[in-house]
Amino acid sequence: MADQRPAKIKHRKNRLEAFSDGVFAIAITLLVLEIAVPIVKESTGGGEALRLLGEEWAVYLAYFISFMTIGAVWIEHSALVDALDHIDGVFMRLNLVLLLFAAFLPFPTRMMSEWKGAVDAERVAVVFYGVVLLLMVLMLIILGRHAEREGLFGDDIADERKEEARVKYQLMPSLIAYVVAAFLGFFVPRLGVSIYLLIAIYLAIPLRDIRKVLRRGD
Amino acid sequence: MADQRPAKIKHRKNRLEAFSDGVFAIAITLLVLEIAVPIVKESTGGGEALRLLGEEWAVYLAYFISFMTIGAVWIEHSALVDALDHIDGVFMRLNLVLLLFAAFLPFPTRMMSEWKGAVDAERVAVVFYGVVLLLMVLMLIILGRHAEREGLFGDDIADERKEEARVKYQLMPSLIAYVVAAFLGFFVPRLGVSIYLLIAIYLAIPLRDIRKVLRRGD
Amino acid sequence: MADQRPAKIKHRKNRLEAFSDGVFAIAITLLVLEIAVPIVKESTGGGEALRLLGEEWAVYLAYFISFMTIGAVWIEHSALVDALDHIDGVFMRLNLVLLLFAAFLPFPTRMMSEWKGAVDAERVAVVFYGVVLLLMVLMLIILGRHAEREGLFGDDIADERKEEARVKYQLMPSLIAYVVAAFLGFFVPRLGVSIYLLIAIYLAIPLRDIRKVLRRGD
Amino acid sequence: MADQRPAKIKHRKNRLEAFSDGVFAIAITLLVLEIAVPIVKESTGGGEALRLLGEEWAVYLAYFISFMTIGAVWIEHSALVDALDHIDGVFMRLNLVLLLFAAFLPFPTRMMSEWKGAVDAERVAVVFYGVVLLLMVLMLIILGRHAEREGLFGDDIADERKEEARVKYQLMPSLIAYVVAAFLGFFVPRLGVSIYLLIAIYLAIPLRDIRKVLRRGD
Repeated sequence: MADQRPAKIKHRKNRLEAFSDGVFAIAITLLVLEIAVPIVKESTGGGEALRLLGEEWAVYLAYFISFMTIGAVWIEHSALVDALDHIDGVFMRLNLVLLLFAAFLPFPTRMMSEWKGAVDAERVAVVFYGVVLLLMVLMLIILGRHAEREGLFGDDIADERKEEARVKYQLMPSLIAYVVAAFLGFFVPRLGVSIYLLIAIYLAIPLRDIRKVLRRGD
Repeated sequence: MADQRPAKIKHRKNRLEAFSDGVFAIAITLLVLEIAVPIVKESTGGGEALRLLGEEWAVYLAYFISFMTIGAVWIEHSALVDALDHIDGVFMRLNLVLLLFAAFLPFPTRMMSEWKGAVDAERVAVVFYGVVLLLMVLMLIILGRHAEREGLFGDDIADERKEEARVKYQLMPSLIAYVVAAFLGFFVPRLGVSIYLLIAIYLAIPLRDIRKVLRRGD
Repeated sequence: MADQRPAKIKHRKNRLEAFSDGVFAIAITLLVLEIAVPIVKESTGGGEALRLLGEEWAVYLAYFISFMTIGAVWIEHSALVDALDHIDGVFMRLNLVLLLFAAFLPFPTRMMSEWKGAVDAERVAVVFYGVVLLLMVLMLIILGRHAEREGLFGDDIADERKEEARVKYQLMPSLIAYVVAAFLGFFVPRLGVSIYLLIAIYLAIPLRDIRKVLRRGD
Repeated sequence: MADQRPAKIKHRKNRLEAFSDGVFAIAITLLVLEIAVPIVKESTGGGEALRLLGEEWAVYLAYFISFMTIGAVWIEHSALVDALDHIDGVFMRLNLVLLLFAAFLPFPTRMMSEWKGAVDAERVAVVFYGVVLLLMVLMLIILGRHAEREGLFGDDIADERKEEARVKYQLMPSLIAYVVAAFLGFFVPRLGVSIYLLIAIYLAIPLRDIRKVLRRGD
């Protein structure tokens, strides 16, 4: 029977990956449904139409931040699960909670773009949005911690891989940045949103590859 | 030709899994579209905005119950199919009926949150919701029974795996709980919903892993 | 290099399957978004709420027919591609056209349930719906024909598999039934819809498995 | 450890493919949600209903162009990634940007069909739509260039495969055609849309297979 186990275990991972990929892909793609096309009249001029589109900048920005953050979380998730030798039932449930927040993100994204302009409501929206982003990244860190504590990485995985998976602890600075951004966002909403944008870009930088290139240079 | 069969059969399963994962993932992610962002005015205060969000608690609760129930059903489905040696055409059709109920769930979820407040309509919504949850879990049990009767588990699968798949009969208590919850929910809607929530949490508990830990302790 | 080809070819198929599974799964799951929850007032009685739900029977029926038809087409598609040795570029494009019709189906489904009641418009909707169903099944047959003509099944595939894939020519009767149903549906819409329902059920019957059982009995 | 690397690397690719397939499949299937069913009255005649459907031709056309373009981009993406030996972190990020444009496409598609009729706004919509199509194809070319520069194709891949992947440079003419179409579309919107349609059809032609057939004829 011993020879069947690796195949089985790999399979288990595959299914978790397929389901997670599905939820991430759908959440990231549903975001576009939130963007409303401005209503024009027959007489609306070209410049006016452009201006109407431009007025929606907050919607595009929210779309972009959510897309890049989910995308970056997916990349981290992919690297983490990839480095695992096997998964357990607790990992599957923790993963479900991570997906809960990822699938929920279109809601605060919509809220942030709809409440823009209503001064006080906007503060609430920006904080709420930041909290969901934070919870998503937090769950990713918890997943990694659980994997390490329970020895899910296995002994026979190359060290390089392990280290790669550990780089996710660069997620930690993001966590702190989200707290700061949500706090500042309550007082100056645009500042909070700007920091969310910076975090999304930061998370999307291929730090691992840059590291490797630098190391090669030694 | 004999050496090709296992590969072929495994492939068949893969495709059923991919399609099922897709439907589960989409149903679970579409739920968020049902949550409407409260409308605020420019003058809406921060506290008022928070209160508007809070008023929607029934919507969040329905979202959470549906998400966790589909998630738990997916985990059980994953464990069942994983333990199978091969599948037959009847299994594929029964699986399609399971997916029919899973994909339909966003409708009663929406109904339950929209009909909240209309005293008598709410009773109907809570019972209807419970019936769909029940049918989903029932189909999962039928799938497992069919697999066992038709010998889809095969002889060469480790006993541990078989037992794991059988643990799904812990689904049975849920079935009874759904009947009780739907019945009580007709008279006291909130009580019914509370039981649905408890079942979702119960279904999501990693009983298998807890068992293993306990057994290790022997 | 010769030993790499099979792996490569299998991979190609996998990707086509993954993409097709995705489109089928999404089309089948999006259907639920078309079902509107009836609007109730605070004073709406339980019986009245039930009656409102019951009035939507045409919507549920359209949902059920579309779900089962896409589901059955997916099962056939799965059996066909599974029996293939490799695929070519033309197969990928023909497959894309099949997906075009599958992904389009939610539109005529919605039309059929929204135009119910408007006597003459309903005729148009029922015919239009039938034409899309017909085109979907037609593309499936064309895919099978192309695979056979171009020898995509390969020589080294078990005969049993080939025959299985050929059973799809039982799709042919459905094709004729769709033409009849669309024609009759123009004059008596409900008759047309009833035949669509019967075809969906017919397509979902696991004929292959029944055959095998009967053959075993010889 | 050396024997584990290929399996690992292949896995990495699989996950990128699964996620990309998901986003492409969802974007292509969400398009149908943009098509509104014309509203009819009880007294609407059959001819009138048909006319109402016919009036929506611009919507169907936009649906068809977007569907075929995403479909063709998916086919190219599939051929490119298939020919890769492994992927790096930069490839994953560039891929994410490609998906960003693909997932965004339903928005300009909707805009183009909603702004039809508003003379000046239509010009803006047609150019905007073309720019998104162009960016999508451009990202595909950039992905291919990156793969070539970084040696992601590997040395042990059959030459035929490499060449196949290189055929994507037939994407280049499309790029130029998009610029021309967007420019002309500003002055004569319908001309621009017609060229988009031609490019979609051109991209969907299985040039590789035709080439092979021609070569066989030598």
